[in-house]
Amino acid sequence: MTTADRLVLYDLYGAYGGLIDAVDWPGWLDLFAATCRYQVVPRENYDQGLPAALIFCDSRAMLEDRIMALREANKYNIHWDRHVIGLPRVIGDEAGEISVEAAFAVYQSDQEGGSRLFATGLYRDRIVREAGGFKFRDKTIMLDTFAVPSLLATPL
Amino acid sequence: MTTADRLVLYDLYGAYGGLIDAVDWPGWLDLFAATCRYQVVPRENYDQGLPAALIFCDSRAMLEDRIMALREANKYNIHWDRHVIGLPRVIGDEAGEISVEAAFAVYQSDQEGGSRLFATGLYRDRIVREAGGFKFRDKTIMLDTFAVPSLLATPL
Amino acid sequence: MTTADRLVLYDLYGAYGGLIDAVDWPGWLDLFAATCRYQVVPRENYDQGLPAALIFCDSRAMLEDRIMALREANKYNIHWDRHVIGLPRVIGDEAGEISVEAAFAVYQSDQEGGSRLFATGLYRDRIVREAGGFKFRDKTIMLDTFAVPSLLATPL
Repeated sequence: MTTADRLVLYDLYGAYGGLIDAVDWPGWLDLFAATCRYQVVPRENYDQGLPAALIFCDSRAMLEDRIMALREANKYNIHWDRHVIGLPRVIGDEAGEISVEAAFAVYQSDQEGGSRLFATGLYRDRIVREAGGFKFRDKTIMLDTFAVPSLLATPL
Repeated sequence: MTTADRLVLYDLYGAYGGLIDAVDWPGWLDLFAATCRYQVVPRENYDQGLPAALIFCDSRAMLEDRIMALREANKYNIHWDRHVIGLPRVIGDEAGEISVEAAFAVYQSDQEGGSRLFATGLYRDRIVREAGGFKFRDKTIMLDTFAVPSLLATPL
Repeated sequence: MTTADRLVLYDLYGAYGGLIDAVDWPGWLDLFAATCRYQVVPRENYDQGLPAALIFCDSRAMLEDRIMALREANKYNIHWDRHVIGLPRVIGDEAGEISVEAAFAVYQSDQEGGSRLFATGLYRDRIVREAGGFKFRDKTIMLDTFAVPSLLATPL
């Protein structure tokens, strides 16, 4: 992977968090490959190889449906997200797919202006090159935090 | 923007948080262009285009005055800041100005050694090239958290 | 330092946090030079030049012993760490040693799926080039948070 490509990869992660926080769903969906998978798995299940995911979408259309449903739910739980994502770490790069991991923390702020930690975890992603740059082929979100009251009102 | 320039940009953000946390105000002020603006705006006001800022400085001299006042206030509320800043994201680059966004979380620790989340938000910056590297021309801090007891005892 | 080297440096920090969080101790120990020092110092002591460290290891063998002891302690306090590390900042680069600083926040999640801020601080490191890339020669962890109940059940 060239140095320039590495920075394009960093941009993908900057955009991933930035677009969720800016509530720009079309822009966010565009970060995924046409054929893609998105899932949120509690760490314990992940470690034990259990298949049960909190969210599982195996196409961009399904992911889009999910986002629309979340938008509806959010009308009754108004808050703002803020993603702080650590440096992406390239784990593998072969057969046209790049494996990347990045730690994240998501904070939520309510309308009274209070902020709190919402969730932490690890992105474990497979990324492909498409027209327009790198895209997520498979985004597996290994979630440390799964006991939160308003869980998953927005994507992680 | 060249690959080398991108890393200089990353350094600007590393230095921005690092110098506040190290209480190095001259070093921190030097990250701003001679003609600059610094403002802290609650997210709600920002979204609605309301002009009211929590802090507004439209010159480096005014920013310096503000910092000196904060130093005085801090004598009565001793704490340490820690900035964790996400990957800066280049939004635009034209006419000699680079538009950059970066998510941040600021933590504060008190003299008893307890730490807590202080604030989260988004830097929305316009950056220029000057002798000595990139400088902030306009730093707008969109603040998610505005209901905190000891707000803004140091710059965000 | 070349652009490519800077990205190798970023990778070192990505791996540092990632390998602790993945509980991969052999991988983590391999990030240190054969001759190395690792210490955790409260911020107040650091600022006053006091030598007292919360943890002090002046060889990789000693660091390895310490890790094995921590693993034993962790059987009775099961939790998961998550490191979010800010952009590493190169402070100096001479005589074959690179001085780097990076802010960090560490979160812990328990078996009930709750997450909380565990500690914040600053890595103040000296790094050398060895076969296999950059390695930590001296890792000094300046800790903002020292009043935590389950302190240092894993390395920071």
